[in-house]
Amino acid sequence: MTTSRSIEALRHEVDEINRELLTLLSRRGEVVAMIGQAKTQEGRPHHYDPAREEAQFRELEQLNQGPFTSAAIKAIFKEIMKASLDLEESNDKKQLLV
Amino acid sequence: MTTSRSIEALRHEVDEINRELLTLLSRRGEVVAMIGQAKTQEGRPHHYDPAREEAQFRELEQLNQGPFTSAAIKAIFKEIMKASLDLEESNDKKQLLV
Repeated sequence: MTTSRSIEALRHEVDEINRELLTLLSRRGEVVAMIGQAKTQEGRPHHYDPAREEAQFRELEQLNQGPFTSAAIKAIFKEIMKASLDLEESNDKKQLLV
Repeated sequence: MTTSRSIEALRHEVDEINRELLTLLSRRGEVVAMIGQAKTQEGRPHHYDPAREEAQFRELEQLNQGPFTSAAIKAIFKEIMKASLDLEESNDKKQLLV
């Protein structure tokens, strides 16, 4: 019973971290959307910037102290960046439709 | 120039959020590893728990207020959960080797 209760407590901590991750991801989405708008205003329609992505991966790899491998962290951030790019591009489409 | 500077400032904010995300993800990895150890001690070798994953997705979908779609949030968390499962399973292998 002690172990089960402790699994339950640990799962509550995971749920709490999930909520904090969602808040941070949403904030990141808002900031990235602002960057996208600024780029569009400057007439730079190509949002994908491999050098900028690579710089972010490098910094994260340097900072990562585990327990996730750097490959796992990179895979997670690739998914975050993919979602961010989709967001920038869908915002562009909305602007075209206005 | 004003727009460029503002893109620069926004990118600094993204970098700061990335670091906070890495800290939270690493903490999540530690907690999940503790859950994995508790399960192994209880003789529950199967770490993959689709019902538990589904419950997390449902909660995140309910909480999500954008700008990311719930599908994008789900894709990001799927990658986080995949990394977590790999971590639990590699910890089990290490225990077997001790």
